[in-house]
Amino acid sequence: MYYNDFFNFEIVKASDKSNARAGVFTTPHGIIETPIFMPVGTNSAVKMLTNEQVLDTGAQIILANSYHMYLRAGCELVKKAGGLHGWMNFPKPILTDSGGFQVFSLSKLRKITDEGVHFQDPKNGSKHFISPEISMQIQEDLGADIIMAFDECAPYPCSYDEAKNALKKTNRWLEICFDKHKIYSQALFPIVQGAFFDDLRIQSAEFVSKFDAVGYAIGGVSVGEPADVKNHITEITAPILPFNKPRYLMGVGTQVDIINGIKYGIDMFDCVLPTRNARHGTFFTYQGNKIIKNKQYENDFSPLDERCNCYACRNHTKAYIRHLYKTQESTAATLLSIHNIHFLLNLVKDLRNSIINGNFEEYSSELLKGFEE
Amino acid sequence: MYYNDFFNFEIVKASDKSNARAGVFTTPHGIIETPIFMPVGTNSAVKMLTNEQVLDTGAQIILANSYHMYLRAGCELVKKAGGLHGWMNFPKPILTDSGGFQVFSLSKLRKITDEGVHFQDPKNGSKHFISPEISMQIQEDLGADIIMAFDECAPYPCSYDEAKNALKKTNRWLEICFDKHKIYSQALFPIVQGAFFDDLRIQSAEFVSKFDAVGYAIGGVSVGEPADVKNHITEITAPILPFNKPRYLMGVGTQVDIINGIKYGIDMFDCVLPTRNARHGTFFTYQGNKIIKNKQYENDFSPLDERCNCYACRNHTKAYIRHLYKTQESTAATLLSIHNIHFLLNLVKDLRNSIINGNFEEYSSELLKGFEE
Repeated sequence: MYYNDFFNFEIVKASDKSNARAGVFTTPHGIIETPIFMPVGTNSAVKMLTNEQVLDTGAQIILANSYHMYLRAGCELVKKAGGLHGWMNFPKPILTDSGGFQVFSLSKLRKITDEGVHFQDPKNGSKHFISPEISMQIQEDLGADIIMAFDECAPYPCSYDEAKNALKKTNRWLEICFDKHKIYSQALFPIVQGAFFDDLRIQSAEFVSKFDAVGYAIGGVSVGEPADVKNHITEITAPILPFNKPRYLMGVGTQVDIINGIKYGIDMFDCVLPTRNARHGTFFTYQGNKIIKNKQYENDFSPLDERCNCYACRNHTKAYIRHLYKTQESTAATLLSIHNIHFLLNLVKDLRNSIINGNFEEYSSELLKGFEE
Repeated sequence: MYYNDFFNFEIVKASDKSNARAGVFTTPHGIIETPIFMPVGTNSAVKMLTNEQVLDTGAQIILANSYHMYLRAGCELVKKAGGLHGWMNFPKPILTDSGGFQVFSLSKLRKITDEGVHFQDPKNGSKHFISPEISMQIQEDLGADIIMAFDECAPYPCSYDEAKNALKKTNRWLEICFDKHKIYSQALFPIVQGAFFDDLRIQSAEFVSKFDAVGYAIGGVSVGEPADVKNHITEITAPILPFNKPRYLMGVGTQVDIINGIKYGIDMFDCVLPTRNARHGTFFTYQGNKIIKNKQYENDFSPLDERCNCYACRNHTKAYIRHLYKTQESTAATLLSIHNIHFLLNLVKDLRNSIINGNFEEYSSELLKGFEE
């Protein structure tokens, strides 16, 4: 028994004018049509939404954060409930990150050693240690379909030496992760690091490609770098990764980032932006992001976006949602979250269709004009 | 054309052992099976929920607050959207209160005259005046199926003279409301007042009964009085109101209050408790109200209530909802709101069936044992 008893990735169509590709990724909890956007459910729930609402946006896979679930509710409890799928009663594929990104973000509360990371829970001061071995154990307990290697994410900006050392550790830890992880119904994705140095990124992409993984991720982006730096790193890294395997660009992103990522050959994206933006009253449209509380929407009886078919747009007007937002009714954030997630899922679906129809480059250029307005 | 072109109330079965009755109340936006509980949507949304979720709880009618809608979003805007039904895209019956209760609750920010109430918006200090005429105009603009007379609600406790004067004003204002309101697709309910003095309550019930209204309300309860006082007032007042018309006990209540109200002949109830409790982590069960954050639920993989068939109970465990509540995920409050509203709606549905089956008194006594535990 091996990974390919549980997983399969098939490229339905690859563009001949860019690296864009449309695929079907089969996992133990269902198929994912790629390119795909994955909504984030940090604490094992997508913020402001029920599972029913998440599924209604068209979500095919969601992400949960190992770091958060490890601290609260705890892996033992989630395992006892049958892993994340049983725990949160979510029927479709789930991906967990390794916890690495979150513990490195604690800066003052963590200490990195060769073996792993010592850190303190910022909420109660309790002390913890995560190593590649422990991250694998956490993610096995959580039981997601796709799990991530425990890596060291260098900050932006950082020195070449810093980036090189972090990559060295990431590579060693990756070997430990693959040694430790033997549950073939959970696909372990290695992660490309190397900060923003071309040679390190290329080395890293070549290194991870040696592992016979189900899919491969590019990490260490969306850490504060300019968009063109992110694009450049994605552009040079993605094509080195095995062509016939899904590629995941971690923590990305905006509509523009997603379009660019697809062009460079990325198949999977995740980002907290659609839900975070929603909670702050920002909604996505094909003419760029808009602010619901703006006076201009006070009398606006049209939907958030004329082309959108989400629950919020089918049922409610900007004027009504603005009123709910201004009166601090959380239903506003729920409706905007539904809209923003559906918007991104519909965006990737349309882009996927354009790849299949052979006009991705023209179609995405048209879309970019609206988003970059 | 008159009210009975739009409204009808039919008693399907009246108990011969108590004043309980099961009815069907027909309104312009659909029928309501009574006794019924009405979820509250203060700012034209039931807190934490979408319309879809509200309808999924089994809601047959909801309440919106005139005072809040008058201040924000404003009646003109709601009217332009086609009244509350168009504004919030809610397909079923809606009831609005008169705004009286809210403005009287402002205590230091309001001044009562013979003509109406001057008050300041506590949010921005703006000055306003609501009279019976203006309340009718507001509620006509909001366009609910059922609208309420503008009354003066005396506080608890209050002197006899205070109660008598408030009632006198309420009676005069009631005449103004009926003079002013001529839209027969909106049923105007008069309100019994008289604080907690039997003679005043009886006088008031007799006075309002002279008006040929579609239905009648008992107000001025749930203002801080003990449960037995509330029960007594309901018990002596309800039977005086016309038998063949729906009776609405305003702002009530708890499971026990609802059971008692039905026994005394009440058909309609509203209360913010199910949603407010939910936001504070309290959930309803047939063994009384429980606190989700309690340690005992940490490993509890059973639903909130074993007998409940709501979305939350069909899909989630106490352990999961507790985790969401403790990690401040608003989805917890959403799930608990769905549960609590569904619980009350299911309670009144079961009680209605028991009336029809002729065993309301036995069935409700059994239920009371659990709720009073």
